[in-house]
Formats: sequence, C-alpha cells, structure tokens
Amino acid sequence: MAKVTKINHVAIAIKDVDESLGFWHDALGLDVDHIEDVPSQKSQVVFLPVGGSEVELVRPTTEDSGLAKFVAERGGGMHHLCLEVDDIEGMLEQLKAKGVRLINETPQVLPGRKMAFVHPKSAGGVLVELYQLTD
Amino acid sequence: MAKVTKINHVAIAIKDVDESLGFWHDALGLDVDHIEDVPSQKSQVVFLPVGGSEVELVRPTTEDSGLAKFVAERGGGMHHLCLEVDDIEGMLEQLKAKGVRLINETPQVLPGRKMAFVHPKSAGGVLVELYQLTD
Repeated sequence: MAKVTKINHVAIAIKDVDESLGFWHDALGLDVDHIEDVPSQKSQVVFLPVGGSEVELVRPTTEDSGLAKFVAERGGGMHHLCLEVDDIEGMLEQLKAKGVRLINETPQVLPGRKMAFVHPKSAGGVLVELYQLTD
Repeated sequence: MAKVTKINHVAIAIKDVDESLGFWHDALGLDVDHIEDVPSQKSQVVFLPVGGSEVELVRPTTEDSGLAKFVAERGGGMHHLCLEVDDIEGMLEQLKAKGVRLINETPQVLPGRKMAFVHPKSAGGVLVELYQLTD
C-alpha cells in the first residue's frame, strides 16, 4: 500500500513577492532558499524551507490560471497542501479505488519529482497535491 | 532572535469527522493518533501525524466561533498553518516590532504548549498560529 511520508510543502497564493517577504522573511525570519519561475504552473515560486518541509509563496504569472483566480477573488491565502508519497502511481490507484476524484489521473513528470493533484471536492475543500521525489 | 523551527500542523476545517476520515484515513491512509475535544477552541480535533508534522481535522462544536463561520461559508478547507517556534514571547515581540498585527499579544498557556495567532491581515490572508512546546 502506498504511503504518505511527510508534508512536502504548504503553498500560499500571493499577489506580490516583496510584500509577502516582508512578513514571511523579514518579520518571521524564514530563509529564502531560492525563487523559481515555473511556466508549467504559470507561476513564480519562493521556496522557504522550514524544518523538513517548505512554505512556498506562489505568485501567478498569467491571468488565466486557477491560482490567478484564487488571488483575484481572495487576495491571497493558503492555496494547497502538498503531501509526499513513496509511490505516486500506487497512491493514485488507491485513491481511485476509493472513489476519490483526481485532477491528474496519471502523474506529471517534472525534474526531480512526479506530481498529481487530487480534486478538492473529494478532499473536504482542500486542494491536495501529491509528490513523489525522483532522482 | 526567535526562530521558526518547523511546521507543527496544518489545520483543516471540517463539517463531519466520519466523512473527513473517509478521505484522510480510509483513502489516503493517514493514521489517526487520537481525537480530542478542545473546549477552549470550541472544537473537536482529529490528529493525523505525518512525517514530523500533523494534519489536524478541526470540527467546530459551537456555532459562534470563527471556525464555525468558516465552515458555514466555505463548507470546509484549509483553516490555519501552525509554525513551531523556539521562543514564542521573543517571536511575538519581533513581529510587533515589524508592525505585524497579532490576534494574541501574549501567548495562551495550554498543557504542553504556549500558543498565539497572528492576524491574517498581516500574513497575506493566512491565519498563522505559533506554538512553543513546553514540558
């Protein structure tokens, strides 16, 4: 049986990087590991490691994504929860067998990881991302 | 300088414990450590350890809390992010000095921990809880 091993990250939708770092970095003291453009997700991401997990500040770079809509409607806030699993294909099969609705039926393969989103309608309103780290 | 050491938990507001466990426990396979009534927070909490952190499913037990309002309006979802710190009084001073608005200016003392909430208006729409574990 596939297993969840940890919280990989909590993603926070933001409007503006500098304004957000005023709280997360300047006030709270989290270190910025790096800032990355992720065109496949139409976003720019600030990675703030904390313990063995990360807070990720995610800024939409286009106006046509779910993330952009979220920021336009709510002004920002917690966007998704990413859980690391040991076997993402096994986990997706397991979820489908339990009737869970998936956004990605098969994992997207990215450098260093495979990922898939579970539909929030099946997860109590939470957008859950699953990661399996790869070499 | 006070430091954030880890993500203690991500709290998810829920309507119904059994329905929520259908996803988080039955489908995703997270173990339930215990379920606790927390009258001071007007809630019942299901603790699901994952890695060194926890997912907490939080069900309002009254109708007059912020949590109850959140569930009534949104039907559930990510409610707050709890960060563990090494010195909560020091962290609250540090945040105040940076102009961050706090819900609790001084920590609430509970068995095993001191806690305080930061106002979401100062944290990009995220309700941030701070924990310092105590003996």
